[in-house]
This record gives sequence, C-alpha cells and structure tokens, in this order.
Amino acid sequence: MDQKERALQAHRDWQGKIEVVSRCKVENADDLSIAYTPGVAQPCLEIQKDIDLSYVYTRRHNLVAVITDGSAVLGLGDIGPEAGMPVMEGKCALFKEFGGVDAFPLCVRTKDVDEFVNTVALLAGSFGGINLEDISAPRCFEIERKLKERCDIPVFHDDQHGTAICCAAAMINACRLTGRKLSEIKMVVNGAGAAAIAVTKLLLSMGLKDVIMCDKFGALYEGCEQMNSEQAYMATVTNPENKQGTLADVLSGADIFFGMSAPNVLTADMVRTMAKDPMVFAMANPVPEIMPDEAKRGGAAVVGTGRSDYPNQINNVLAFPGVFRGALDVRASDINEDMKIAAAYAIANLISDEELSAENIMPKAFDPRVRDAVATAVAKAARESGVARI
Amino acid sequence: MDQKERALQAHRDWQGKIEVVSRCKVENADDLSIAYTPGVAQPCLEIQKDIDLSYVYTRRHNLVAVITDGSAVLGLGDIGPEAGMPVMEGKCALFKEFGGVDAFPLCVRTKDVDEFVNTVALLAGSFGGINLEDISAPRCFEIERKLKERCDIPVFHDDQHGTAICCAAAMINACRLTGRKLSEIKMVVNGAGAAAIAVTKLLLSMGLKDVIMCDKFGALYEGCEQMNSEQAYMATVTNPENKQGTLADVLSGADIFFGMSAPNVLTADMVRTMAKDPMVFAMANPVPEIMPDEAKRGGAAVVGTGRSDYPNQINNVLAFPGVFRGALDVRASDINEDMKIAAAYAIANLISDEELSAENIMPKAFDPRVRDAVATAVAKAARESGVARI
Repeated sequence: MDQKERALQAHRDWQGKIEVVSRCKVENADDLSIAYTPGVAQPCLEIQKDIDLSYVYTRRHNLVAVITDGSAVLGLGDIGPEAGMPVMEGKCALFKEFGGVDAFPLCVRTKDVDEFVNTVALLAGSFGGINLEDISAPRCFEIERKLKERCDIPVFHDDQHGTAICCAAAMINACRLTGRKLSEIKMVVNGAGAAAIAVTKLLLSMGLKDVIMCDKFGALYEGCEQMNSEQAYMATVTNPENKQGTLADVLSGADIFFGMSAPNVLTADMVRTMAKDPMVFAMANPVPEIMPDEAKRGGAAVVGTGRSDYPNQINNVLAFPGVFRGALDVRASDINEDMKIAAAYAIANLISDEELSAENIMPKAFDPRVRDAVATAVAKAARESGVARI
Repeated sequence: MDQKERALQAHRDWQGKIEVVSRCKVENADDLSIAYTPGVAQPCLEIQKDIDLSYVYTRRHNLVAVITDGSAVLGLGDIGPEAGMPVMEGKCALFKEFGGVDAFPLCVRTKDVDEFVNTVALLAGSFGGINLEDISAPRCFEIERKLKERCDIPVFHDDQHGTAICCAAAMINACRLTGRKLSEIKMVVNGAGAAAIAVTKLLLSMGLKDVIMCDKFGALYEGCEQMNSEQAYMATVTNPENKQGTLADVLSGADIFFGMSAPNVLTADMVRTMAKDPMVFAMANPVPEIMPDEAKRGGAAVVGTGRSDYPNQINNVLAFPGVFRGALDVRASDINEDMKIAAAYAIANLISDEELSAENIMPKAFDPRVRDAVATAVAKAARESGVARI
C-alpha cells in the first residue's frame, strides 16, 4: 500500500484525529450537582465578577483554536473549508503531542476578510489563543492585523510566523557555522508569499540589513508595478539599492539563498555566482528549489530543506507547540516580535558548538528538549516585553 | 465545605471540564507523514471532491458545538459569554458521558441576533450538529429559526426542545397512570418563556388540544397587549375559548398544571379547583411552583419537579445525549418534530406498566438504558421523516 492509500486508510480508522473528553467525573446525582446544576452557578458568578477567572474555572487557559477558511491548504490551494479540516485536526494533534496544548479545529465558510475576522473575533472569549492556518495571501495579512487589533488573546498565523521562527533558527546556526553576522550578510529570498514575507520581516527585526525579495517576475523594488500591497510594503524595507532584475541577476554575490517558492528554480551554476561558502535553504515541498546534492555541487557550505529525508530539516513543529505553550503559561495577550526572536534563538541554541556542523544545524522534530526550551524562552520574552498577564 | 465552595474547589481542581486529545499516534517521522504532511493531503482532496466525506475523514461525524451568548445562563440571567462557559463545559461533559458525543463549548461575544446567527452558521462545516444553550427569549426563537434555515446540520436549542421532550415524556406517563388521553385533557402552562412555549408546541403536535398559557400578567389570549411576538403567536394556537384572567381563574377544572415559572406561585387551594386526580408538574428550580407534599395535600394524583431529591425528576439529561447520538448516527440534517416525539415516547416507554406508579413515571437520570432507547428511536424517526443522510 503506498503512502496515499495508507493515509486514507489511517484517516478512516481514526474516525477523526481529535476527540473531546470529559475531565470531570459524572457518575451520580452528587457529581452532577457539582459539575452541572446547581453547583456550576458558582464559577459562573465568579467569572461574571472577573472575566480573567475564566482562565481558572474553564479550560480556556490551555485552549487554542486552529482556524482556517480553506483558501490555501498545504500546496493544494483553495479547496474549501471542510476539505481543509484534516490538516486542522492534524495540527491540533501535534499541538497536544508536542506542546500539551488543547487545540480545536474550526473552519469558517467565508472568503470575505471582514466576515472571517468578525467570526473569529466573536469567539475569542472561548479560547486562550488563536492559530490561523492555511489562509491565502495577501488576505492573511489583513486578517491577522485586524484580529490582533480586536482580540485580547494571541493571534498567530503559523504559516507566516511559525515558519519564520524556524527559518530564523536555521539562519542563526548557519551564520554560527560559517562565521557570519546577520547584520553583515547579503540575502536573497525567492518567493514573496506569506511565509517568505514573514521570514524576511522577522530577520529584519533581528538585525538583517541587506535582503532582496524576488517573485516570479523578479526582484521586488520600489516602483515595480506587479506587486500586491504587502509586497509593495516589503519593497520599501528591503532592496536598499532598489535593484531590478531576475533571481539570477540579484543572487550574484549573495551570502544566502532562501527559497519559499517552487521546485527546481535554482541551479548549481547560480549557486556558483554567490559569495564564498554560501548558505542555501530550499523550502519548497516536497520538491525543493534545488536538491541538496546539487546545491553542494555548486559550492553551498550548508543546505537546509523542509524534508525529513535530508539533513537540516526546517519543520514548523519545532516552533508552534512551544510558542503557544509559553504564551499560554503566562497568559500572554499577544505573541510579539520579541517572543518570536526568543523562540528562534531557543531552537538554534539546542545545537551546541560541538554538535554544530554542515549536516546538523537544526534540532530534530522529535527532540524532547525543544518544547520546554521554546516555551521557557517565549514566556520570559512575554514577561520582559510586558504582554504576560500572570 | 458547603456545595458552593465544593463546586468552586472542584472547578479549580479540574482546570476545565473538557479536554481535547489526539486520536492518532505521532511518535516518529513516518507517523507524522501520515497524520500530517504530506499524507494528510489525500483526505483533503477526497473531501474537496465530496464534502460528505468530511464525516468519514474528520471528527465531524461525532462533533456537536455547544454554543451560547451568555444571555440567559441558568437562572442567573445575562452574565456574559465567558461567564456562561462553565455551564457549556458541563454540558459537553454530559454529552460525552451520557451520549458518547464529542461536544465543544463556544461562547459568542455579541447580543445581536444576526451577528450571532452569522457567526454560528459560518462554523457549521466544522460540526455534525449545533446545540444552542442559555440564550434569552424571545431572541432564541429567531436565532434558532434563522440557523435552521441556513445550516445543513441539526440545530437544537436544548432549553426549549430538550426540556420539551422530557416534559412530554412525563405527560405521556402521567396520562397512562391516570387513564387520560392527551387529546382530551385540559392543560394550563404557567410561564411563557422559551421552555414553556417549546413544551406547549411539542404537546400540540402530539395531539393536545386544550391548553392555556399564562405569563405573570395572566392568560395569553388573542388581543392581549402585554405579549412579545412569540407569545402573540402562541395565543393564536392555544386558548381555544380565548379566556382572560389570572392563573387561578383559568386553572379551575384543568387536568394538568405545568409550571415553568417561579417559586411558590401555586397553592394547595388552587390545586383543589382542578379536575379530579389532577397532574402537577412544578419545574421552577431549585424552588418549584409548589412543593410536592403541598400539591398532594391539594389532591394531586401525580407530581413531578426538576429536583433529584423528589420522585419523578424531569431532567434534560434524559433527552439531549440520546437525541444527538441518534441524529449523528444517521447524519441527520435536522432534528424535527417526529424525532422529538419519538424521543419522548422512548423515554416514557422505559417505565413498564408494572413499574408505573405515582412515584415512578420517569426513568432515572443515570439509567443506562436511556441513551440507546432514545438514540434508536430518534434515528428511526429521522429515517422515516426523510432527514437521515445515511
């Protein structure tokens, strides 16, 4: 049985990848009078007096909604809300397994930004955090921005920020390995979708200065007419010399290539035009922008991909469980830049100087140290940046 | 420690009465590739082709949302969405315990009917059913009506219909006990809120003909100016002689008193004015319209209340778990009148002729036969009325 058929069979057998269970015993009339009426009136009245007690008397303190509109599911595109749910349920299973977080999957039957925002915002009292998932760009930027304004709990678009945190961790260690400083390197990001933009933004906030983003049409630059609104913004904070041209044109002399684009768009010859000991991250999945062997033939000093069958896998599961674990632990009102940066360094620092090598810049997805390292760092950053509420 | 303090302590200890757990193993890269990417793409694509497969490849087939706006929580009134959540979580625990249903609690931060309806309707693809809870009247009628129009899954306001089913079961057996026919009895319902109206509507659909509803201002009759829109409608389908007057006025000669109103509004003297062997159901909780002993002093042949410390407790937990269990089992698109009536008879018929007595007209809340009896009857009625989809 091939993987596709195995996956279908497993999903039929599971009958859903998540389940809601009871944490209270209800075996007789006395149990019922405590867990339900009339006893339940007491925690209700306490919460009415102080809404923050909803974190004490209900599950809210550990609950995250995993929400999609089904508009950009995996690489499958706009397959619809219901069809996105196997991914949402899988994400929820990972939240529990890797972060001890209760996550519940929801799909929203609208493609209208304001209707989606309103629906999610009105549910915020039910959860301790909101994880947005598989929402198409550039709508995802507006949705996240509006939800952050309206919600008093963290709102986190994992496709952007979970990816950005993991990519930043890989960058940190690739720089350690090759003796570079983030503030001095020259970077080219190929792809200008949600994840690519989020990675670029996070690295800029960490000290990166010289970065050019490319879309299919070439470099993003101020004045370029093929950009959407978010790309137009990125053009103002990247590409300091406002270069124009193709990926091959702007890649020449770069220290690092970061691909979040399409299969096989990078060649060994293009890698040869980069700076000495270049770093290549080819994140397109399952077929990367360049295969690792080919990148090495072009001279790459370190190569990372999204794949588990090559070294240096960059996998979101390293970030989101610990990020929400840390945010929930201090009842954070937001997941801000400081918390994301702290998460990136926490992941990177799990690789000791002795362990660090061209084949080993990232901890493994199943490394049991990751969750606590990330959660502790995120909670600390939340406290220091003033968004922790306990 | 009194019950109030015990309830608070228990809720602190539980740290939430529900929890989301994973049903799939994710212990290594192979597990991950089946439960999550890339394997998860297959069930997504199957559902894209046929949305009904969301019942096969996700948890939807067993999932019910328990949703409130916090506007009429227990007898506490409008205490707000978050403060209603301990009740919603308790309900979800009961759904699991008594019906094997995965239920998830949600509160919506709006009091606007259309905004609430839109929020819930847009989430319908995430669930197999929607249980509305603790929403104030008359808004609850409009909300339910609009949601039933927009949703392709059952929408059930338990405060109305769960209560109505249990009350109907009690009526069926009280009539059996006293040798009456529902079509021939004269009934007075005191209270004209959501539950009272739902009970009256269900009994009318079961054959009851002569019923008068009373609110604080007295009997509902056509032309009365103190009624809200739903009460005005009820006035057109009840009170065939269009009587006016107080509860005491219209109660004279009635076979049955059904109270869903306020403590101590019925006296033994008033019961004495009723027909021979009258039936008295005093559902106000915790203090009923009349205490059972007092009702018997007035000559009541059978008395029921909402309390577990008297015989004949009428408890919603007899209905909603089995009703949703049955509806989910046949993937019903609706919970219609036939299904509610079937549930009422299923509950009533659990009491055999030998067991039936003035002290024993209702099965106990923890009777393990209730769930399957109700679920089987509801599923059968769904099939026969054409709303079953499998």
